[in-house]
Amino acid sequence: MIIRVNTSRLQSNLEALGRIGRDAAGGITRPSFSLADLEARAWFRARIEEGGLEYREDGAGNQFGRLEGAAGPEANVVMAGSHLDTVPNGGMFDGAAGVVAALECLRTIREEGLRLRLPLEAASFTDEEGNLVGDFLGSRAFTGKLDRGLLERGTTSFGRPLAEILSATPYTIETILSAADRAPAVAAYLELHIEQGPVLETEGISLGLVETINGKHYRWCAFEGESGHSGTVPLELRRDALLGLADFALRATRHVASARYGSFVTIGKALIQPGTFSSIPRRADFSLEFRSSSKESMEALERELLGIAGEVASARRLRFASRLMDRTDPYRIPGRLAGILAAEADRLGYAHMPVTSGAGHDAQILGTVTDAAMIFIPSPDGLSHAPEESLRWEDLEKGANLLLAALLRLAS
Amino acid sequence: MIIRVNTSRLQSNLEALGRIGRDAAGGITRPSFSLADLEARAWFRARIEEGGLEYREDGAGNQFGRLEGAAGPEANVVMAGSHLDTVPNGGMFDGAAGVVAALECLRTIREEGLRLRLPLEAASFTDEEGNLVGDFLGSRAFTGKLDRGLLERGTTSFGRPLAEILSATPYTIETILSAADRAPAVAAYLELHIEQGPVLETEGISLGLVETINGKHYRWCAFEGESGHSGTVPLELRRDALLGLADFALRATRHVASARYGSFVTIGKALIQPGTFSSIPRRADFSLEFRSSSKESMEALERELLGIAGEVASARRLRFASRLMDRTDPYRIPGRLAGILAAEADRLGYAHMPVTSGAGHDAQILGTVTDAAMIFIPSPDGLSHAPEESLRWEDLEKGANLLLAALLRLAS
Repeated sequence: MIIRVNTSRLQSNLEALGRIGRDAAGGITRPSFSLADLEARAWFRARIEEGGLEYREDGAGNQFGRLEGAAGPEANVVMAGSHLDTVPNGGMFDGAAGVVAALECLRTIREEGLRLRLPLEAASFTDEEGNLVGDFLGSRAFTGKLDRGLLERGTTSFGRPLAEILSATPYTIETILSAADRAPAVAAYLELHIEQGPVLETEGISLGLVETINGKHYRWCAFEGESGHSGTVPLELRRDALLGLADFALRATRHVASARYGSFVTIGKALIQPGTFSSIPRRADFSLEFRSSSKESMEALERELLGIAGEVASARRLRFASRLMDRTDPYRIPGRLAGILAAEADRLGYAHMPVTSGAGHDAQILGTVTDAAMIFIPSPDGLSHAPEESLRWEDLEKGANLLLAALLRLAS
Repeated sequence: MIIRVNTSRLQSNLEALGRIGRDAAGGITRPSFSLADLEARAWFRARIEEGGLEYREDGAGNQFGRLEGAAGPEANVVMAGSHLDTVPNGGMFDGAAGVVAALECLRTIREEGLRLRLPLEAASFTDEEGNLVGDFLGSRAFTGKLDRGLLERGTTSFGRPLAEILSATPYTIETILSAADRAPAVAAYLELHIEQGPVLETEGISLGLVETINGKHYRWCAFEGESGHSGTVPLELRRDALLGLADFALRATRHVASARYGSFVTIGKALIQPGTFSSIPRRADFSLEFRSSSKESMEALERELLGIAGEVASARRLRFASRLMDRTDPYRIPGRLAGILAAEADRLGYAHMPVTSGAGHDAQILGTVTDAAMIFIPSPDGLSHAPEESLRWEDLEKGANLLLAALLRLAS
């Protein structure tokens, strides 16, 4: 027997959620613990309760809607979820699609009157986007992977300490750190998400079964040289920090594009000092982020990129320094889950293909304590983290039906 | 007969001036029309009057101390001067040395009871450093080279419109624009200044006779590409504006260092958008400044550098746009003045050498209406625009004595 989600309810729920946090620039600005996020949380809780599911939240503000199983309340949970928070001026589907699809699956199962062996939970994790202190605050709290120092000393992207932002919520640094203590054991975690890249659309296939979630390494770096008057210090005597950054950016990109094809390197942020048109740049601070699919290639990239920075510094008589800001290990989807997803997609008659996730997801954090897997649906034009982010309802429908089929199988 | 300046008065005046506008970082912060600058202006006026010279200021806030000549008040003026304003966190000699030396020369001439044919003036020009709306506001006003639009629309480096800054002074945009109407005709202009570069110190020579003041061209430029998620857009599909800037910075520097040896190119300021560590840079705005010694090479540099920017944009599928912010033509010191300075230095027994001025100076603006020349004294370690900026008193003494001798000859 094949049961299917209620597509129109799935769609109208996502549309309703897409009206919460709508910003002046036409996107969604809904960082965790903002007013818009608090409204989205209340909306999600109401949908859970209206669907006859049991509502729970933990000390990190992660929200869960639960459908009890025959094995009783102590049994391991089969969980599906994602996140409701967004980047500033982001879109209405990144995260939201996975949360609403998980909710829809549990409501469908309950309405069909199916009694499964294991309990099911639809989850929404706090601050996946890392607007506060590093990515994945909620899923890291849930899995006990948080560092107290980061919470206490880290400055959020809003320039305020985390404790100050929490003061408007029921949560504190202590409740966040203790969230893992009361977390249920998880039998498996599934996450539906938009691809955020162009592969599925280019291939014309609605479902991507993620094989690997790339690891990410983010450093804050600086070249430091010497300033001076732009009209009096000859070019050959300069120690220009901006030229150091320029040299490094080109060499690093060339290296990754050739020797580490398929990996990613990005310099997204740069600050030049003193920063006037007639001063030779004394210092260039910049972000260095790289991503790859295996622990070995992440380690090699770190070594190689820092080596290139050292060569640039030495050739240009600059000093180079850097410090680690955040790092997530790559995650390889366990064969068991990958097999179940592929078999269920085949049974539903849906074309699918293996994909790599370049972006990070809560699934890789859940993967440190259980088997985790992801279903991708196409992102038109590869767009995400932008107001134009979108999806096609027919792709979402297929993804939600596959999620439903896999949950049924895992919880049976 | 050789007369000489009063070295101890010259030194104590410079030291007194160096206490006005001393900032927390140990430098001098005395931009025009700041409280510190108003204090320096009052100090200079008091020194002029105490020296028995006639004080005058014009509608641009340029200050003059005058010693009348035998030819009467309508005769062309022989002028010496520089500026009292500084860059933020600058030093105590850039500009100040030339103003105080000019004052000292006129006081010495008056005290010696010499009656010269032409009137002499010691001048201090407003905002040579361009903290308001482009370099040389005062000397451009004096010579009638100002554009009303720039004054009305230009935003100062303090982020406030010029009119707002002027509201705390006796000056307005109208008085600045009319300063030239009442300016006296100038027979010649001499300016003593620290070198701001390492040449004289390296050569061990106290006096540099400037042959050429480099021209300067300052543009505000931008490469624009496309943003996207740093984990999902493959390197080969990116249109990364920061990599465009990096490529341009290296190619432009390499070009000038080889094909235009002796010229200067500097990218001192850069702003990356959206500017988060996980976004591909969509836009890189940056300053492009180049300097050279002839009109021909300035024109060639403009053509060549914009050509390189176009090549980078096309190779990297970016858009490039730029607009001119400020430009000053190179100035070649007239042979007559260069000859007088060399002859007087020889007569005084001072070693001297020809030098090029990489930095811009009021002299090149005065040079559009009269013959102008400059005397450089060494900058220890080549430093300027920094708290560590310095000079050796014995070099200053030689420079001031040469300035005095040349003024006597020009005004006789």
